Amino acid sequence: MTAAIRMTGATRLYAIVGDPIAQVRSPEVFSERFAAAGANAVMIPVHVPAAQFDAVIPALLALGNLDGLLVTVPFKARMLSFATRVSPAAACIGAINALRREADGSWSGDMFDGAGFVRGALAKGERLRGRNVLQFGAGGAGSAIACALVGEGVGSIRLVDADPARSAALAAALTNSFPGCDVAAASAPPAAFDMVVNATPVGMRPGDGLPGDLGALAPGVLVGDVIIAEGPTPMIRHAQQHGCNWVNGRDMHAGQIDAILGFFAPGLRLAGGQIAA
Amino acid sequence: MTAAIRMTGATRLYAIVGDPIAQVRSPEVFSERFAAAGANAVMIPVHVPAAQFDAVIPALLALGNLDGLLVTVPFKARMLSFATRVSPAAACIGAINALRREADGSWSGDMFDGAGFVRGALAKGERLRGRNVLQFGAGGAGSAIACALVGEGVGSIRLVDADPARSAALAAALTNSFPGCDVAAASAPPAAFDMVVNATPVGMRPGDGLPGDLGALAPGVLVGDVIIAEGPTPMIRHAQQHGCNWVNGRDMHAGQIDAILGFFAPGLRLAGGQIAA
Repeated sequence: MTAAIRMTGATRLYAIVGDPIAQVRSPEVFSERFAAAGANAVMIPVHVPAAQFDAVIPALLALGNLDGLLVTVPFKARMLSFATRVSPAAACIGAINALRREADGSWSGDMFDGAGFVRGALAKGERLRGRNVLQFGAGGAGSAIACALVGEGVGSIRLVDADPARSAALAAALTNSFPGCDVAAASAPPAAFDMVVNATPVGMRPGDGLPGDLGALAPGVLVGDVIIAEGPTPMIRHAQQHGCNWVNGRDMHAGQIDAILGFFAPGLRLAGGQIAA
Repeated sequence: MTAAIRMTGATRLYAIVGDPIAQVRSPEVFSERFAAAGANAVMIPVHVPAAQFDAVIPALLALGNLDGLLVTVPFKARMLSFATRVSPAAACIGAINALRREADGSWSGDMFDGAGFVRGALAKGERLRGRNVLQFGAGGAGSAIACALVGEGVGSIRLVDADPARSAALAAALTNSFPGCDVAAASAPPAAFDMVVNATPVGMRPGDGLPGDLGALAPGVLVGDVIIAEGPTPMIRHAQQHGCNWVNGRDMHAGQIDAILGFFAPGLRLAGGQIAA
């Protein structure tokens, strides 16, 4: 049974900011979880036009009844500087996807994208240790996933990004933080890999294709895609055509929700209780 | 039966801004009306600390999925300058309590407080023509009510405000717009009146008393109060103690809702239809 979403003058606000915003699932998922826990709180979608970002975010953080923010494309890196403090992982990644207001009014930021992706893969019975990974995209989500994959002990990561400076910078940051890891930028897919991840926005718009030239996939290749869509994305369709196991944006999102709820409201009783003061 | 309030990435936002905000009823009322009409839209409470107002409002108006604003204490006058255009009545009053986004992205403002108060009084069987009115408060709501009362043909209005310059300015503005009306500022309640209105915030906080020295009321005096509270405010209690008919903040609020819904979404079917494109 789903508890009704409430809206009163005393409702506490959490917001997800992005451009575009209509495709996001968090408002529904988090608002229902808040309601189920008996909390008078909602997650609202907030469409921040990219050109207005720097002016709008300080204003949102100044609202007296806003307790937390989620951050989606294209703002995860730009949001970092608006946090009062961030976790060491977020600092290494250079991006955050969640901010919470502390009791003193300051804002703490952290990044849950990578943890969500890893949880999604594990939930599908996959083992990540030793994998040789091809990853498209070295932006906010891509950085988080690569960082989490290194933490899981993958064998290597090759990063392909439309902006070669961005993939080189991410490889350098990860190599610096984890000296033993084998992470490098690449201008094209390597000849061999047993895991491929799309961490770009390619696949979000109708008519999009694959994020790069993949060719045929061996059945043991694990395919990941950060895009959340109604049907299978081009990347997931490619996995299905070659009999590969896959982790999509929904799996990744599901993996994040509990972690983020705990970050926002440590006292939230997931089985129908109250948010502690 | 109440339709469930929805929250998705595509939900359109309406916001009520004020400081404080937890006491407002509009989020519940409007969100339920939107839901009942099948519209994927909500009214969220937004607590804008007064010192942040000038920085926050342009940011809110820049949000891509915000279609309208309601404005409450203490921002109704300050909001006027953020509208691209306002109604002639709002221009005379010098305040607005609603803004809607037009198709070209501009913002139209209007003031519905006065109309709501008049509708509330008429719904309680009262006649306003010819009344001699004592009104406390010449701010945003007070200006709107005085303007609407003049429009209903009251006999006279005496305005008492903690800031004498404000009541004098309102009297001058109304006399200028409606040359035949008898509106004047007063430093204290006149000896005789058959209607008294509280348009100040006095009565909102526990321990508040009356907005001024009223003495005993004759039974025919109509008492109005803009404050919305759980129980009777000091003003409404005073009316009840003297057997007077009264119009409270809830009556006034109810009178406004249909008018504002029509302003926000002219195509809204109040009996369960859709918002037209």
